[in-house]
Amino acid sequence: MLPSGVTYADRFEGISGSAIRAIFKVLAKPGMISFAGGNPSSDALPNETCAELAHDALLADGKRILQYGATEGYPPFVESLHAYLSSAYRFPIGLDNLLPLSGSTQGIDLMCKAFTNPGDTILVESPTFLGNMQTLRIYQQKLVPVASDENGILLDKLEEAVIAHKPKMLYVIPTFQNPTGRTLAAERRKPIAEMAAKYGFLVVEDDPYRDLRYSGTPLPPIKEYDRSEHVVYMGSFSKIISPGLRVGYMIANAEIIAKCAIAKQGSDLHTSNIAQAIVDQFLRRGLLPPHIQAIVPAYREKLDAMLAELATFPEGTAYTRPEGGLFVFVTMPEGFHAGEAFSMAVERGVAFVPGTSFYPDGGHHNTLRLNFSNSTLPQIHTGMAILRDLFAERLHQ
Amino acid sequence: MLPSGVTYADRFEGISGSAIRAIFKVLAKPGMISFAGGNPSSDALPNETCAELAHDALLADGKRILQYGATEGYPPFVESLHAYLSSAYRFPIGLDNLLPLSGSTQGIDLMCKAFTNPGDTILVESPTFLGNMQTLRIYQQKLVPVASDENGILLDKLEEAVIAHKPKMLYVIPTFQNPTGRTLAAERRKPIAEMAAKYGFLVVEDDPYRDLRYSGTPLPPIKEYDRSEHVVYMGSFSKIISPGLRVGYMIANAEIIAKCAIAKQGSDLHTSNIAQAIVDQFLRRGLLPPHIQAIVPAYREKLDAMLAELATFPEGTAYTRPEGGLFVFVTMPEGFHAGEAFSMAVERGVAFVPGTSFYPDGGHHNTLRLNFSNSTLPQIHTGMAILRDLFAERLHQ
Repeated sequence: MLPSGVTYADRFEGISGSAIRAIFKVLAKPGMISFAGGNPSSDALPNETCAELAHDALLADGKRILQYGATEGYPPFVESLHAYLSSAYRFPIGLDNLLPLSGSTQGIDLMCKAFTNPGDTILVESPTFLGNMQTLRIYQQKLVPVASDENGILLDKLEEAVIAHKPKMLYVIPTFQNPTGRTLAAERRKPIAEMAAKYGFLVVEDDPYRDLRYSGTPLPPIKEYDRSEHVVYMGSFSKIISPGLRVGYMIANAEIIAKCAIAKQGSDLHTSNIAQAIVDQFLRRGLLPPHIQAIVPAYREKLDAMLAELATFPEGTAYTRPEGGLFVFVTMPEGFHAGEAFSMAVERGVAFVPGTSFYPDGGHHNTLRLNFSNSTLPQIHTGMAILRDLFAERLHQ
Repeated sequence: MLPSGVTYADRFEGISGSAIRAIFKVLAKPGMISFAGGNPSSDALPNETCAELAHDALLADGKRILQYGATEGYPPFVESLHAYLSSAYRFPIGLDNLLPLSGSTQGIDLMCKAFTNPGDTILVESPTFLGNMQTLRIYQQKLVPVASDENGILLDKLEEAVIAHKPKMLYVIPTFQNPTGRTLAAERRKPIAEMAAKYGFLVVEDDPYRDLRYSGTPLPPIKEYDRSEHVVYMGSFSKIISPGLRVGYMIANAEIIAKCAIAKQGSDLHTSNIAQAIVDQFLRRGLLPPHIQAIVPAYREKLDAMLAELATFPEGTAYTRPEGGLFVFVTMPEGFHAGEAFSMAVERGVAFVPGTSFYPDGGHHNTLRLNFSNSTLPQIHTGMAILRDLFAERLHQ
């Protein structure tokens, strides 16, 4: 209970915390097989390497690392990040186009803080990442879903929505989307950048899964087609080095970066220098490309195992076939209720996330999100068998 | 320039970044003696110890440290923080009364996000910490200054302001205040807690300097008198271990903590686990009390040196005589303009912060803040001699 006379902010009306974070608490039960969450595999977390990197960095530059740093980032990290991004992407990036973030999650918060007013419209995919939907809602944004197909956002629907709603931003996860695993088709990327320039809205391109590709060819980010600087690109080391460090980055127009840096002063002043220093060392020593090469085969194997299990699910089960990332999205026949199935699945020792949480307008109770990265192959086989049987029972009731 | 059609948020009207952060850029000039900033001494930053702690923690518990963590904190850190606080303070603290923060700066942001609406009134000391004033302004709070004397906030003025403005919060730095170095008298602390209960407003008690005491007796925090849970206590390891790690904490009513945790989900999901793990190890191994004992004598000596120099300043120079913390506040005779003197001082190789930035209503151009912790004794003597001569020149023009 709040102290007498104290009330929470209007922006907290209807905000109750992320459904996924609440589900995490259920997972504490020993032996639980979790297809919920979006955690990297424990095997993929390079803790011995990071122990050495942290140790070396603190001995070599510890006085600077432990002192107050610049909001604009720990200088060696900014340098190695800039070098890494300049070789990874084909669009020009100046040092004043970069801002280190405390996880790319923070980027959405800073963009909302610096660029939105309550009641502004944000166009989002439907379904989309629920954590960032919550952030948008705390900033009292009006979320308008844009229809997608298996190749991502539909351009005609997007333009209709832009004309009808005059949005401040489009929030899009173009590659191995959360929760669907889908990738925005190459030929839809340039038109989105052009539409942003034409109508004067921002595109927040959230791209944390990009480097976890198990098949197919890498596509250029929307940012590569951005001639007018309307695209704000968010990247992260959470899925390829460690989420616990909380290090991501934003690439944007210099004035957008400057405003977000002011917003960041009040949020956390700067991202923890030791976290930036560890990622700096990882990049500087050239450890990232071989690390990604080392973790991708196991992720591919897990995805394939999950897809093979899904092929044995009851008739009428539809699901995405991602080329990368961490998630598969399942659509069961109408009438199936994933929320009800969730409670029963947890009793049988398996967790997932009901899909309804990812839809801006709710509904879609016959959908669910499955994560494969954080389970072993035996857990995937065992857990999926439990779900298959449970779902079959539920469908034949 | 922002991209076409893009405008910043209304809440950014008049927000131009912290004056102190801008001053930091001036300090890059080699040989500059800086009495600006609030940096701990480089000598006081335990980088070799932290190198060992980071290494050990990442080997022993690295898979958990590098994985996503709970917004409510890295469990071993929450445990050791709880033990540390329970022995340091005489008020009861439950585990659900604690939230780790990415620096106590984040606490102000979360409290604003979860508990204030635009146009709410926040009572603040005058002068007060400018970084947090900027945060309050970004949340479109109306800042109402409450008069203070050398013993902190005047209780009758506070009650008048509470009745007149029905504030949402009082923001107060009770111990070795920033920028004045003053400490709120013991006998004013309990009445503030009682007033908060009587009138139903929150007290945000920001107490990062508390352990840097060079003389006198420690006083109970306002929180110790808080029977009604209106006091939100913010602590930090920035001044006693490292600001670059960005680790602080909030102690508050469980429902306030729960709302701030929801706000934190969207801000950075959780504080960097490696930063929490280093502070955990520091606490767990009992390193903090001896470390504080080790750094306090040098800080005391620096404060004494600065006060001795100030005693030789031109007639009419008034200044505070703090019992701890990092700052001395100087009031020059009327007509002196610290902003003009600042530019000249920088040319002569010495920096400070003009006091006007710390006043919610501006003015007070004859005041300035001096930091002594981040300079050597010779730098203090040299730098203060330069300021003394410059200020004498300015007064006799």
